[in-house]
Parts: sequence; C-alpha cells; structure tokens
Amino acid sequence: MKKVAISIGDLNGIGMQLALENHDAVSKMVDPIYCIDQTMLTQAAQKLNLTIPDNFKTTEEISPAFDIQPGKVSKESGAYAYASFVKAVEMARNKEVDAVTTLPIHKKAWEVGGVAYKGHTDALRDFFDAEAIMMLGCPAMYVALFTEHIPLREVAGHINETDLTRFLVDFYRTAKPQSTVAVLGLNPHAGDEGVLGDEEEIIKKAIRNATEILQTSDASLLPADSLLFTEPLVPDVAFTPRVRQHYTHYVAMYHDQGLAPLKALHFDEGINVSLNLPILRTSVDHGTAFDIAYKRITLNNLSYLNAVRYIVDNTWGA
Amino acid sequence: MKKVAISIGDLNGIGMQLALENHDAVSKMVDPIYCIDQTMLTQAAQKLNLTIPDNFKTTEEISPAFDIQPGKVSKESGAYAYASFVKAVEMARNKEVDAVTTLPIHKKAWEVGGVAYKGHTDALRDFFDAEAIMMLGCPAMYVALFTEHIPLREVAGHINETDLTRFLVDFYRTAKPQSTVAVLGLNPHAGDEGVLGDEEEIIKKAIRNATEILQTSDASLLPADSLLFTEPLVPDVAFTPRVRQHYTHYVAMYHDQGLAPLKALHFDEGINVSLNLPILRTSVDHGTAFDIAYKRITLNNLSYLNAVRYIVDNTWGA
Repeated sequence: MKKVAISIGDLNGIGMQLALENHDAVSKMVDPIYCIDQTMLTQAAQKLNLTIPDNFKTTEEISPAFDIQPGKVSKESGAYAYASFVKAVEMARNKEVDAVTTLPIHKKAWEVGGVAYKGHTDALRDFFDAEAIMMLGCPAMYVALFTEHIPLREVAGHINETDLTRFLVDFYRTAKPQSTVAVLGLNPHAGDEGVLGDEEEIIKKAIRNATEILQTSDASLLPADSLLFTEPLVPDVAFTPRVRQHYTHYVAMYHDQGLAPLKALHFDEGINVSLNLPILRTSVDHGTAFDIAYKRITLNNLSYLNAVRYIVDNTWGA
Repeated sequence: MKKVAISIGDLNGIGMQLALENHDAVSKMVDPIYCIDQTMLTQAAQKLNLTIPDNFKTTEEISPAFDIQPGKVSKESGAYAYASFVKAVEMARNKEVDAVTTLPIHKKAWEVGGVAYKGHTDALRDFFDAEAIMMLGCPAMYVALFTEHIPLREVAGHINETDLTRFLVDFYRTAKPQSTVAVLGLNPHAGDEGVLGDEEEIIKKAIRNATEILQTSDASLLPADSLLFTEPLVPDVAFTPRVRQHYTHYVAMYHDQGLAPLKALHFDEGINVSLNLPILRTSVDHGTAFDIAYKRITLNNLSYLNAVRYIVDNTWGA
C-alpha cells in the first residue's frame, strides 16, 4: 500500500473535517500520514466534536500552536498551513512517502502569514526548479494546461513549436495516459484551414515532434497500435458527448479553453495534479469553504477521495 | 398561432425526413409553410417511403427540379437550398409569416451552386445590412457571441466599450431575457483584479453604459428589481452547476468561450438564433448528416423542435 503525506491546509477551513471524516475511506486506499501535530489535531477534533481514529498518524510539531478561528484569515493559520505543506513535500522528497495530497489553503492567509508563494503550484515550481504541469479533472476527464495564468491577449504568442513539443513530451511521460491524448487547436473551428488563424500548424508540428521523441525514447510507455496524440481538435466540439467518450486526457492551449467545459461537466469531483516534478502531488480542487467551516455541515468528499485515488491508480517515476 | 416559413435545406441531406416526420409535432406549435415545391416534395417523400401529410403546405416552384442524390454535394441541390432560404426570408420580410426556421444546408453545395455566401447568417447580414447577433443554445442555456469567427489572437483587440455597449443593448432588446444576463469576463479568473489582463474594466464600463441606455429607453422591457447584466463572470466558473442555475442567457466574448461549455452540456438539443435583424430566424444546430440521409435511420429531432419552439416562446419586434 502506498504511503501518502497529507498536508492539512488552512486549519480555519474545512480541511480537518474532511481528513477526520474520510480517514477510514482513505485508509482503505493508502497509508496516510497527516502533517499536523497532536495539539492542533486535538483542538480541531474537539471543535468539530469528532473522535480521532486510533490509527490516525500525525507528525511532530511543525509550527507554533494557535487558536483555531473558524472562517478567519489569520497569519498563524497561514503559517501553519505552509509548514504542513513543506513537511509533506519534504517527506516525499526523502522517499518517506510515495506522494503528497494537499488540502485547501487560503491564499490570503499565506500572504499575511509571510509566505512568499501565491499557492502550492507556485511553491513547488520554486522548490524543485522545475516546470510543473498543471492538470485538472477526474477519472472521466483530465485536462492539462499548456498556458495557465496569463491574459488571453498573450495566449497566441505563447504557442511555439519548441515549448509545446517539450510540454507534450513531459506531459505524456508523467501523466502516462492509457489512450490517445486529445490535443485542442487554438482557434475557432481549429482555424478552419487557416482562415481563422494558423497556430494549428505549429501545434501539428509539435505533435509530430513529440510523437517522434516518445517513440524513440519511451517505446515501453506506449500502448500498441494507437496514436499518442490527436491532430488539433476543434475546441467547441472536443467536449461533446460523442467526442469525449474517446478520450480521458486533454491538452488545452489556455486556461478557460480546458477548464470551462471541464468544470461545467465535472465540478464537484475535480482534482488538481502537479505533473513533471520529482514528486507526485495531488490536491482537492476546491477552497477552504470558510463559510461552512466547523459547522458540522455534510461535506462533499468526491474531490478529496479522487485526489487520493489518483495516487493509487497512477505509477510515478517508474 | 404563429406562421413559420421553413426552408428545406439541402435536399440530399436529412432535412426532408425531419420535416415530414415531425410535421404533426410542429403543427401543434405553429402553422408551418415549407419552402419546397410539389415535384421535389413528392420525389423526396417517395425516396424516404414516407406519406405526405394532407395539411403539408408548400410553395410554388422556387428552383429547377433535379434528381435527389442522397449524401452528395451537388450544385443543383445547393442552388435549391439557397432558393428555399431566400423564399422563406422573403415571406418573413413581407409579413406573410412571423419567422423563419432553417433546416441544414451544405456549405460546399452552396459554393458549387454559385451562392456568394458562406452560410445563412452571412447571407442574412447582407440581405438586411444589419449586425445580426448569433445566439446558440436551448431553453436551459443560450449563449450569444460578441466576437465569432475570428482568430483567437485577435479577440482581445475587439473588446472595446463602444461596440460592446451597442452589442449588449441590441442583444437585450432582441433576446428579451426574463432574468439577469450572465456576461463573461475575457481573462482567466476574470483578470484577477487586473493581474491577468484588464479588459474586464472595459466590459464593466460597457455593462454600465448598456444598463443606463436600456433603463432610459426600454423601461417596459425589464423585469422589476433585477440587474440587467452581471459583472464580468469568471469564465470557467460561470458554467458550473451552482452558477448556471441562476442564468438562462450568457454573453460570451469569443466563440469557444461560450460554445465549448454549451456543447459539452447541451449538444443534441442546441439551436442557432439570429437576433437583431428585422426578421426572426431560428435554425437547427446540426448539419446535413449526409452519411445517414435517406437511410430511414431514426433522427434526433430535439434541435429541430427547439428551433420551432423558440418562435412560439419569444415575442419579436413587439
């Protein structure tokens, strides 16, 4: 059974309720270690009126204890959430665990807590000095983003053969898809033979290059008799029922091209996976839900369980 | 009961099967007049082995008769489809009917048939010298496109206050939404306070301008106590289940921003509506399906029936 370090996220949010209530389900899939110390765990469990399971493994103290204030942005909670994340990453880096699953942090709390990063992915890129690939989705559909948080105005200028070739190779090697990857075009109607834009020619070249590189170097990864990548698909047709039944992994050229259809179809069950790093990290794709924290409201646990399940289902660094 | 002229589309495609098989259902909603002559109607019905209903009203000869060739691109069929469309538009222009519903044409057949237009919308813009607004969707969700068939690279440059204000006013007046219209931002996270692009500031101004114009000039159109438009919404959140339950009409800044989520959610039932013209035209949102034409395969009629239903449900030019 794989070992997973679970960073506890912002303790003023819903993370601890998710961790405690789903410990049994998670323990059936992996061997979890929660990056929280006994003092804070006890306080959170009391506030939630939940019993701490016997086999709930924790770490030593990672950051000073503080009073949990449900739904509040606080520097202590931000600093604790960051320390929990750093601890989880450290355990993965040292091979004490096979992967990391992160519970939600509050970005403003990180900021007031003196953390220099905007979020988990940002921090990971810096820790490992590596081009992390952001992939979101669920078992029915994963979408990797070639460009992420940039203005729409700048997207077309980022489509170039070298970077996209590299991205497709890195993505294929670390996502290890079991069937053809759907690569989206950039323009409406995928450019309509160049009438509505010509970046699809660049995308086609990158697809050819990446295929050649992978077929030469990674022959064992590939399913026999199947294309590694599609041609650039028409973006607004690629997510229709008849088309999406053929694909589990999509590469989107920009943020909303991939995430708008994904979230329209699979909002509650989505996860966030950081690929192409020395460690595997999965995350819930929702926030701290400060408005319902410590209110004993039933939480949707699909995203959390899918985040853990991804680690079970996917080999890493093999 | 409203009168509707139905242009028959490409006779080598599935249009006549849709028209004949759904005549009873359509006749319960509107009084249809089919823009086809008796000779071609008889030929098509025989090829389909379908009986022509008694009350199936047709027009005089509109284009020379020809031999139907299922699934073939032909200039005769292209020319006939165009003549049928022109006849339907003429009837609407002359107030002989209240609206037009178009069955699918084949663009290549129009081209080889000597038609100067790429499609219906293109032709309508020229006939009426007017800025037709393209809206796609179904009763659960309509999406109007501010920019349509242009390269993604050019989209941001088209976002300007004057044009968008005009568009929002024209859209509101002719779509007549019964609740707040969801207007999408342009950038990921709707620009995240300017960090990921600033076109949202232009969009906000256009929304304010349009609201002011409509509140001054069209007070009777508006539902009391509700916003006419949202602020620019975060594009990948706007179509999630919790958000979309509040809206029936969306304005997208570009083609795939609106159509990718729409088609992911509502592919088979979608229609295409031309707004902001002197006539109302609705259309199926599928093609001629040449591969299954005259094969007596059961057709999905949701799009066709929704195209007719839109005319019943929406007042026009009032």
